[in-house]
Amino acid sequence: MVNVAVIGASGYGGGELLRWLSCHPEARVRVATSRTYAGRPVSDSFPGLTGLLDLSFSPGADAVDLEGCDVVFLARDNGWAMKAASEFLLHVPRLIDLSADFRFRDVSVYARWYSDHAAPSLAAEAVYGLPELHRDAIRTARVVGNPGCYTTASILALAPLVASGLVDTSTLIVDAKSGVSGAGRSKFALDYHFAEANESVTAYRVAGTHRHTPEIEQELSALAGAEVRVTFTPHLVPMTRGILATCYASLVEQRDAEGLRALYRDFYAGHPFVQVRDGLPSTKHVVGSNMCHIGLGVDERVRRVTVVSAVDNLGKGMATQAIQNMNLMLGLDETSGLRIPGMWP
Amino acid sequence: MVNVAVIGASGYGGGELLRWLSCHPEARVRVATSRTYAGRPVSDSFPGLTGLLDLSFSPGADAVDLEGCDVVFLARDNGWAMKAASEFLLHVPRLIDLSADFRFRDVSVYARWYSDHAAPSLAAEAVYGLPELHRDAIRTARVVGNPGCYTTASILALAPLVASGLVDTSTLIVDAKSGVSGAGRSKFALDYHFAEANESVTAYRVAGTHRHTPEIEQELSALAGAEVRVTFTPHLVPMTRGILATCYASLVEQRDAEGLRALYRDFYAGHPFVQVRDGLPSTKHVVGSNMCHIGLGVDERVRRVTVVSAVDNLGKGMATQAIQNMNLMLGLDETSGLRIPGMWP
Amino acid sequence: MVNVAVIGASGYGGGELLRWLSCHPEARVRVATSRTYAGRPVSDSFPGLTGLLDLSFSPGADAVDLEGCDVVFLARDNGWAMKAASEFLLHVPRLIDLSADFRFRDVSVYARWYSDHAAPSLAAEAVYGLPELHRDAIRTARVVGNPGCYTTASILALAPLVASGLVDTSTLIVDAKSGVSGAGRSKFALDYHFAEANESVTAYRVAGTHRHTPEIEQELSALAGAEVRVTFTPHLVPMTRGILATCYASLVEQRDAEGLRALYRDFYAGHPFVQVRDGLPSTKHVVGSNMCHIGLGVDERVRRVTVVSAVDNLGKGMATQAIQNMNLMLGLDETSGLRIPGMWP
Amino acid sequence: MVNVAVIGASGYGGGELLRWLSCHPEARVRVATSRTYAGRPVSDSFPGLTGLLDLSFSPGADAVDLEGCDVVFLARDNGWAMKAASEFLLHVPRLIDLSADFRFRDVSVYARWYSDHAAPSLAAEAVYGLPELHRDAIRTARVVGNPGCYTTASILALAPLVASGLVDTSTLIVDAKSGVSGAGRSKFALDYHFAEANESVTAYRVAGTHRHTPEIEQELSALAGAEVRVTFTPHLVPMTRGILATCYASLVEQRDAEGLRALYRDFYAGHPFVQVRDGLPSTKHVVGSNMCHIGLGVDERVRRVTVVSAVDNLGKGMATQAIQNMNLMLGLDETSGLRIPGMWP
Repeated sequence: MVNVAVIGASGYGGGELLRWLSCHPEARVRVATSRTYAGRPVSDSFPGLTGLLDLSFSPGADAVDLEGCDVVFLARDNGWAMKAASEFLLHVPRLIDLSADFRFRDVSVYARWYSDHAAPSLAAEAVYGLPELHRDAIRTARVVGNPGCYTTASILALAPLVASGLVDTSTLIVDAKSGVSGAGRSKFALDYHFAEANESVTAYRVAGTHRHTPEIEQELSALAGAEVRVTFTPHLVPMTRGILATCYASLVEQRDAEGLRALYRDFYAGHPFVQVRDGLPSTKHVVGSNMCHIGLGVDERVRRVTVVSAVDNLGKGMATQAIQNMNLMLGLDETSGLRIPGMWP
Repeated sequence: MVNVAVIGASGYGGGELLRWLSCHPEARVRVATSRTYAGRPVSDSFPGLTGLLDLSFSPGADAVDLEGCDVVFLARDNGWAMKAASEFLLHVPRLIDLSADFRFRDVSVYARWYSDHAAPSLAAEAVYGLPELHRDAIRTARVVGNPGCYTTASILALAPLVASGLVDTSTLIVDAKSGVSGAGRSKFALDYHFAEANESVTAYRVAGTHRHTPEIEQELSALAGAEVRVTFTPHLVPMTRGILATCYASLVEQRDAEGLRALYRDFYAGHPFVQVRDGLPSTKHVVGSNMCHIGLGVDERVRRVTVVSAVDNLGKGMATQAIQNMNLMLGLDETSGLRIPGMWP
Repeated sequence: MVNVAVIGASGYGGGELLRWLSCHPEARVRVATSRTYAGRPVSDSFPGLTGLLDLSFSPGADAVDLEGCDVVFLARDNGWAMKAASEFLLHVPRLIDLSADFRFRDVSVYARWYSDHAAPSLAAEAVYGLPELHRDAIRTARVVGNPGCYTTASILALAPLVASGLVDTSTLIVDAKSGVSGAGRSKFALDYHFAEANESVTAYRVAGTHRHTPEIEQELSALAGAEVRVTFTPHLVPMTRGILATCYASLVEQRDAEGLRALYRDFYAGHPFVQVRDGLPSTKHVVGSNMCHIGLGVDERVRRVTVVSAVDNLGKGMATQAIQNMNLMLGLDETSGLRIPGMWP
Repeated sequence: MVNVAVIGASGYGGGELLRWLSCHPEARVRVATSRTYAGRPVSDSFPGLTGLLDLSFSPGADAVDLEGCDVVFLARDNGWAMKAASEFLLHVPRLIDLSADFRFRDVSVYARWYSDHAAPSLAAEAVYGLPELHRDAIRTARVVGNPGCYTTASILALAPLVASGLVDTSTLIVDAKSGVSGAGRSKFALDYHFAEANESVTAYRVAGTHRHTPEIEQELSALAGAEVRVTFTPHLVPMTRGILATCYASLVEQRDAEGLRALYRDFYAGHPFVQVRDGLPSTKHVVGSNMCHIGLGVDERVRRVTVVSAVDNLGKGMATQAIQNMNLMLGLDETSGLRIPGMWP
């Protein structure tokens, strides 16, 4: 059994970690912190864990709490992890951060989209935690920057095309639709009030102004071997969980859908959490799981491919991907504790 | 008071016509037909009309029923109207069809996407019922082909750009999200079962295979003065009503968002049902109304514009647009009976 | 045309008043106040009113603003109206308060459930604004206390039974289900976060502890001519609008459903906004309207009747009922501006 | 490993069995039948199982298919199992039926609510599969009639009160709210169309006419030692899963909520899937799990108790309860494969 600490465990990401770790056959949550719920049972914040996880929130995690922990998950806001990480690493050998702090190889990009980076050398050391692209590096990483939710869906949808050189990388567009839990539990604005979010679709931060844009560009540029720019549009959709990313690219030569699906299946061979399907994905098929489903079509009239991917923003887009990273970092089977199908219907 | 007949009045389109006509100050529903509910009060099919519209469904509409009617709305399936229209026109001077049958100037396009056309000369005579583009022709039309829901949102979003020549028309992409009522009341598949449609976003008919594609292309081609091809992707979103169309195009020269909004405001000046807003539209802001809201942004890094439009698929995308057409055809004020705000929240 | 002032116009109640008044044929909003949006167009807070209501929020309403107004609606929190009302009445002849402040004949009841009353003589003068019970008194009232949403549904469902003496009033139970907009726009708790309210039904304030209990008891006691106690349970349901009240009572003698429906139809004869239907009501049939639908059944095995009523919590449960009261107070037709069917589907 | 057959596996109940069994550590699905999907992979009907359950649907299950199976689940319509059961029992030692066919000790009750019973002696032998009431009998049963969804929630909510003699059993009322998946995948009516079920609460089959009534009465009568009648009202709520049962009863003597909670905790001691909580339950806290949460309050003014229970209609109300029964029947740990928390948010 590996021992785990979860810092910032009363938000949606932290709660999802607790939920999955409570039934992980090889991991045990040893400490879970929450400033808001300090001293109270985790079931006060997550009643669904009543009778299933017997643990109380700590206000913080000191050396004693962390002793014997094999990995620590940081599930707090952007900007906090980069200041706290080195202290945790004195006590715990491996760290997975769910914020944006350790996702960027180039801290000047982080600085442009977030703020100056407080731990540039740790950032340089950190591995981008997308196992389908960086599995080997993750296995030996000390610090993993767990990808964003939109990012995971977008990169997995476009990576095979970009890596193959089959598309004109100046034509990449990602039109992404997210459930409202993506906004987080603490950012509480009228936009997320049930009465206002319900029965509505809305676009926000259009034209490449959303912070997940540079993450997508970092990974696709690495695959392309050249600077890539993506027009990314996030949308809020009236559902709790799930992201659907509809991606567009112009093909540099004519290909049909069947051929491209074969390319995708090759690319993701040996990656059990990406499924390339003949049909088109629905978020409902992946919600509550670590799966990413991908489908596609080609508009041969205009030689443009449409690739659609679906993930659970709190699952493969966040907490279960973090556990997949943990499994790799600690030498467990990559799928341990993660072969649970999503909830349907 | 004008007298109105609604044929096929127990579906969503017909019901929405009844709902709006029941409180139209200058129109009166004289006959409403339904094979399913023939002989029963309209409130059996639409309980919300109890006490507000005292009328029973007829099985069909013969010469006697239609006598004195100023306009007939056909709200039945594609393929039915083209066979029935000429008979109705013997009794009623004006006809508005809500199916696809009278939307195409070129019946060979209709043949390619639907079936051979049974009334090509009527099709040639018919006017495409989008008042913002064809107001004058509608005023004098005998037959109007009321536009599709996706189509209305897409064309209104892209028309000013295409007409101005500011965009490369080979780069047009429309990523559209629709509420489930768009599937209609009679097409009843598991996809529309609450348990399966709820909490899910899904793409369908990707890569330009949806039948609204040629409609969009017909109108944009006319504006461009050249053949235009659009990659159109419809999505099903877990809400009852509303369409959001997120449209992408490459600018042929750099423009900023403010300048493009001015262009849009000029284009739609004098059109009370299109509102160009500084912010981005939400379907919830237009649902239950005849409004179309438009917002936009420019990704200057890649010289690409993102235009977002929102309509109610049963309102401006169907029934209220049909009433707007009726108002024009019968010489009423264009906004008569339509200045009711949508329901919010 | 009558002139209207709306105080506290950026909440859900105020917004719904603006929405309905914007298309009322005999009323005009002259002033709408909002501390949050002062100086900005109403369409900043309610984008759906863009192009339909050309008005900006005032920070407050002074004598000049109110001059010429025929009625003022107060749409602010409990406890505010009782302090402000007398000042408004210096300038405006009639006042309709949407809070709880003027709903109780006995200020000691108000004191027990809310706080000491600041204007007991005005409270004594005020008329309870449920037109189906107090139409004549409302016509001549200077101050109307507009009923609560749960209250409207509950009283209308039980009034005919209680007034007739057919039920044992010690057995009254109201099990009510409300959409989330009932929580208001300003009370913003995690319970109303889309991600937490969605896909969930929950009971709250069980066992007669909700503040709408004494209102229901006041009106039913008056009808019974004796003190009546009701067990009232509110529930939060994942929808934006609508209240369904399922009410239980033991019959003192055996009656069948048909007979009871006749009793209800007699009781509500001449009241156009209450419809007694043979089937059972759905909130969707009334949402967006001023209607109340009622249906019922009798479990003859146990001589117990189940009455189900449906209203829109922001419509007949709030804003449109307030307009119905306005119409009565100002001598307009009771249905003026209110004969618009709700939105369906 | 135990071997399992699922008959009728492409509905919601069957699919939920497949989902949970796919990750059950001690069970393996050997055969799953579906007439609709015969010969196709289970992932055609349930795309979420892609990569997680490698199995195809059989058209039926003959002796060869069933050989070596330890238990068969029947997940088809009422009326089918009673005809098929004895044939299955020739090949498989234990049978769990998810329909109503084996739930009634008295086949005359079955006859009154459903139809004449085709296998009265098997019905007499069968055990009612509610482990919290019949755990020991289930352990040795050959045939288990798995309870209905409403029934499970209602009985668990009322059993401690009825068994204790603390309530007047002539006053029992159950007001239950269900998600739409409760209607099943095959019963496809307009009521379950997303556009009509969404944003609506509706009551149906009021006044004790729903078929779950006699099931509740059978079990509560056994606990009371006397004939008990319950007024049961089912409601349809716009969510996919979950049942909330709000139950009312008059206390024969004054008790407070704390005392009653203690009574409930005693009653359910040793039953890990019933959690008595201080607060009130929400369906969202149990959906996706085998849990039942219970909370309560006492209206001391009228000496009436309100008990609220929550279950997942497809979980504890159907498939996971069936697996709990399987675990008991096959001598596995009662909680094996079931200690997975529900999905939240």
